Amino acid sequence: MEKPDDRKYTLLSKIKSPADLRRMDSGQLAEVCSEIREFLINTLSSNPGHFASSMGAVELTVALHYVFDTPYDRIVWDVGHQAYGHKLLTGRLESFHTNRKKGGLSGFPNPAESEYDTFTAGHASNSISAALGMAVASKLKGESPKRNVVAVIGDASISGGLAFEGLNNATNTPNDLLIILNDNDMSIDHNVGALNSYLTHLNTTKAYNNFRFKLYRLLKKMHLVTDKQKNFILRFNNSLKSIIGHQQNIFEGLNLRYFGPFDGHDIDKVVRVLSDIKDIEGPKLLHLRTVKGKGYKPAESDPASWHAPGKFDPATGKKISDPKADTIAKYQDVFGQTLLELARQNDKIIGITAAMPSGTSMSILQEEMPERVFDVGISEGHAVTFAGGLAKDGMKPFCAIYSSFLQRAFDHIIHDVAIQHLPVTFCIDRAGIVGEDGVTHHGVFDLCYLRSIPGLIISAPADEETLRDLMYTSQASDSGPFVIRYPRGKGSNPDWHTPLKALEIGKGRKLNSGSDLAVLTIGTMASEASKAIKRMADEQPAVSIAHYDMIFLKPMDESILKEVGESGCPIITVEDGMRDGGFGSAVQEWMNDHGYHPEVIRIGVPDEFVEHGTVPELMAQCRMDSDAIYESILKLTHDKV
Amino acid sequence: MEKPDDRKYTLLSKIKSPADLRRMDSGQLAEVCSEIREFLINTLSSNPGHFASSMGAVELTVALHYVFDTPYDRIVWDVGHQAYGHKLLTGRLESFHTNRKKGGLSGFPNPAESEYDTFTAGHASNSISAALGMAVASKLKGESPKRNVVAVIGDASISGGLAFEGLNNATNTPNDLLIILNDNDMSIDHNVGALNSYLTHLNTTKAYNNFRFKLYRLLKKMHLVTDKQKNFILRFNNSLKSIIGHQQNIFEGLNLRYFGPFDGHDIDKVVRVLSDIKDIEGPKLLHLRTVKGKGYKPAESDPASWHAPGKFDPATGKKISDPKADTIAKYQDVFGQTLLELARQNDKIIGITAAMPSGTSMSILQEEMPERVFDVGISEGHAVTFAGGLAKDGMKPFCAIYSSFLQRAFDHIIHDVAIQHLPVTFCIDRAGIVGEDGVTHHGVFDLCYLRSIPGLIISAPADEETLRDLMYTSQASDSGPFVIRYPRGKGSNPDWHTPLKALEIGKGRKLNSGSDLAVLTIGTMASEASKAIKRMADEQPAVSIAHYDMIFLKPMDESILKEVGESGCPIITVEDGMRDGGFGSAVQEWMNDHGYHPEVIRIGVPDEFVEHGTVPELMAQCRMDSDAIYESILKLTHDKV
Repeated sequence: MEKPDDRKYTLLSKIKSPADLRRMDSGQLAEVCSEIREFLINTLSSNPGHFASSMGAVELTVALHYVFDTPYDRIVWDVGHQAYGHKLLTGRLESFHTNRKKGGLSGFPNPAESEYDTFTAGHASNSISAALGMAVASKLKGESPKRNVVAVIGDASISGGLAFEGLNNATNTPNDLLIILNDNDMSIDHNVGALNSYLTHLNTTKAYNNFRFKLYRLLKKMHLVTDKQKNFILRFNNSLKSIIGHQQNIFEGLNLRYFGPFDGHDIDKVVRVLSDIKDIEGPKLLHLRTVKGKGYKPAESDPASWHAPGKFDPATGKKISDPKADTIAKYQDVFGQTLLELARQNDKIIGITAAMPSGTSMSILQEEMPERVFDVGISEGHAVTFAGGLAKDGMKPFCAIYSSFLQRAFDHIIHDVAIQHLPVTFCIDRAGIVGEDGVTHHGVFDLCYLRSIPGLIISAPADEETLRDLMYTSQASDSGPFVIRYPRGKGSNPDWHTPLKALEIGKGRKLNSGSDLAVLTIGTMASEASKAIKRMADEQPAVSIAHYDMIFLKPMDESILKEVGESGCPIITVEDGMRDGGFGSAVQEWMNDHGYHPEVIRIGVPDEFVEHGTVPELMAQCRMDSDAIYESILKLTHDKV
Repeated sequence: MEKPDDRKYTLLSKIKSPADLRRMDSGQLAEVCSEIREFLINTLSSNPGHFASSMGAVELTVALHYVFDTPYDRIVWDVGHQAYGHKLLTGRLESFHTNRKKGGLSGFPNPAESEYDTFTAGHASNSISAALGMAVASKLKGESPKRNVVAVIGDASISGGLAFEGLNNATNTPNDLLIILNDNDMSIDHNVGALNSYLTHLNTTKAYNNFRFKLYRLLKKMHLVTDKQKNFILRFNNSLKSIIGHQQNIFEGLNLRYFGPFDGHDIDKVVRVLSDIKDIEGPKLLHLRTVKGKGYKPAESDPASWHAPGKFDPATGKKISDPKADTIAKYQDVFGQTLLELARQNDKIIGITAAMPSGTSMSILQEEMPERVFDVGISEGHAVTFAGGLAKDGMKPFCAIYSSFLQRAFDHIIHDVAIQHLPVTFCIDRAGIVGEDGVTHHGVFDLCYLRSIPGLIISAPADEETLRDLMYTSQASDSGPFVIRYPRGKGSNPDWHTPLKALEIGKGRKLNSGSDLAVLTIGTMASEASKAIKRMADEQPAVSIAHYDMIFLKPMDESILKEVGESGCPIITVEDGMRDGGFGSAVQEWMNDHGYHPEVIRIGVPDEFVEHGTVPELMAQCRMDSDAIYESILKLTHDKV
């Protein structure tokens, strides 16, 4: 892990805060950019993180902190994959080697970490609304000097519904918000949608826009532009542009002043443009074209795989793979392969992903049957409602969305799927503690928020075979909406490619018999529990512990619950979601409703937000790992040992 | 309640299904429209419902069923306030007098009710995504004859983020979706936002569009338009339009073929346009200008108050108010008045509503301090994230949103408010069973889905005074995000204007002492419980029952819980939300975690979707009313009586 070296990073190492940057001559900024790139390549090659986005935003980042008076002026980064350069310039160069490590820097902008990180980032498309709130607050408070607020949003994020709602409201009220559209034609994978085609097309009118901007600057310099004239010039420009450009400008249709597109890697240009437009009143949008991975050839030529490349050799760009990685498949790959198998047999199956074909492994089906997969871009709400429409007319959509992003579609699950009892299969990926991505990305709320929705089948496999069988069961049954929830990362079975079979819905299974205690688990937490039970068997052979893998949160296996209730033994429930209101709570409700009053210890995520770290570190911190389960077992069986 | 009279409704009464309509001569359609209007006026004047929207969509409705082969062709209504005419034409004329009554017709399109109701409606902006799903399903299945799919969306709904996500995806894939923009410049209240200004502006280019459309029809009739030429003509038209219209067309920017604006009340024109464009391939948008309340003068001149006017005299338009209505205030008015009082004292308070200034009574503050209220249109997600931005920079936003619509902002509450612990006050209106609006509108999920979010304060007042005090407490404290949840409709206290005071957060109150049973309630369910307890006291004076109004779901009053737990008596919990995972579940969790194992009966909404009816009817059906509570009391105290 490289620490900043004063000789190597001559300028960068002198920047303790953006004020130091602002004291530099503008001629030095290109060198600052190049040092940031060098630092990112050297650092991220050994401590992996999000790479290509930050590489593409270096000039923009330097220019923003150079032109604006941060932190008094506010920069709101959307998503935040691109904000590493921002961290380096805002006092976090020395600590950047702790990026994404427990107790270290967060991988996303995080207001708890720095006053330069103005708003939570991680989920796409929130920057315009949040920045608009700040801009309006500043106006209402009549702050002096005027506080500038800048939202920086990518072309993928701006296609999300929340961003559109923000744009639609940006001109509703007096404010001077600046929206910067960082347009690299990429999401994590390639970008999709009409807005994206539109942005690509906009680029073709660059020459005209350049001309228009130069004209505007000239008029301004000559003091020929006053506030009164501004609106006239804007109208005139728009008409002129329509005529010359032979095309429509959506942003100007929404009453936003539009500037661009400009080359986002021309640092002098970006500084000049920002300086010129920063004092223009009213909301405005600056469109910059950038290259994801800019400045590192391997990343420029394959930006999707360099979004978060893992470790690599900085000199060659060769990725360094984990030697034990290849023997065991990820849950994602089991999902992707199984979906392809099922789609070959059932022509009603449709795959839906919201901008994550690679991340979810929906790409496996997409490659063989592109017409059966819909990548809807960053729009989880649409993904679910669209799936509802498909299901209403006879298809069997499989909607694969990360757990924490599916929160965006909570209402859509209720209103557009569950009320009509439509056969949509929700494959909830990245469920539970996800590790390094931290507080915004843990998939820990799903069991709680889904459980209250009537008619939903909610399941979580403990292993690859069960994942496959649940997928098979969902498409083969007429059971309405069906949730299958599984974690990020690897399973445990190298021979996961088992024959597909139907499972009985609402039926769990007994993994271990015992009479002193019953451990009820859901999903892959079964393996943590098994470890604890095995340790107990080794250390306290006199104590006998039953272990049930419930598989289904809803409907729950009442024959197991009855067996456990009748036994009168205490219960431990284990889940990798919020403890209050989730699986353990459901077990407890059932027991009480049926006249049983066992002692129950519910193991799950405690009632607080969990920051970043490795999964084992965070599981230990949340007292959810096998050690914690073991302790709870001891506590409930102390009279037997 | 008027039944359809064959002599009065000569044509309408003959239409048992749209096939009958399609057998009529097009010259008769104007008369059908006029009979529908007459019927709506006469019927809704005595059995209240949504009035002005359906009046404005009569010609559109008749034209759609005349031109399209429903139900084979699909019409997807957005929200569905406008769909009464559709119900009358699709076999529900005879039963329309049961509209919004328990066991009768639903007030919104409802697929469970009719095959003509193609998708759940009630929450705005879902029609494009759902219809796109149907259009794609039809293409994939290669259905023959070609199935037409039409989404009908208002100008307010189309400003929601979900609608934009749908538009952005509509051109992603081969489909022939027709989107009809029913543009009446109204939401429930007046419409807002950049898109709305844009649509108003579009109207000014009507002459040009008419010309363009006539040209197109001429070319088509002369068989001069082929598929190959279509794209060229489209491009040519767009350029021409930019030049002539001197403005931007957002929809064409998104690659949607745009037609309009046309007069949506010219039935011949609408029929002709629909016939002409129905076979054009690819996704397209037809823009109709309509007048909300059309054909009934009082409604035309004040469409907002005629959105859902209640009973009225059809001859004069005089609204017939409930004689006992005026003595007791609605919770909404208590909220609105109190917010104004607080805003006068605290200049950091900002009001936010998502298109419901009248419905939430945010209008009271808006009238006195328009600069302190933001009506963001139908965009609950933006409302919450915008509130987060305001709060981050020092304001105290009060965000008033209906419970079931706030489901759209679940992720935003977590990601943009709770993680940063920002002081946003969520005033959740229409919580609990809402009555006649039915399955899509009940506010029954909030306690469950909010409870798992760390750091949220969640409260529900039992009466007007507590509502006021909670609002006061929230703005006076530094306690982070604060939820106050209250029902639709009237309180109980004519003297609600009590002095404002701070409450201790997490502190409940004892309403009644007793030792045989403890009843714990949250929110206005206190009054149902009080009635049951009083009845019990009258009938079984030997049984003594404690009643606690917990006020806070989170944090919950542990001193009360301890007192109850220690007493060892059985517990009844009462809430007007989903029973599984909610308030009762939280009480039970606490008891178990602290070593108490009382018998607990949880009263709340059972695990099924609740249809429409009056609130008392539905409360009885859900076994949540005072009779049901009384029965549970008897059950738990049978050994004492």
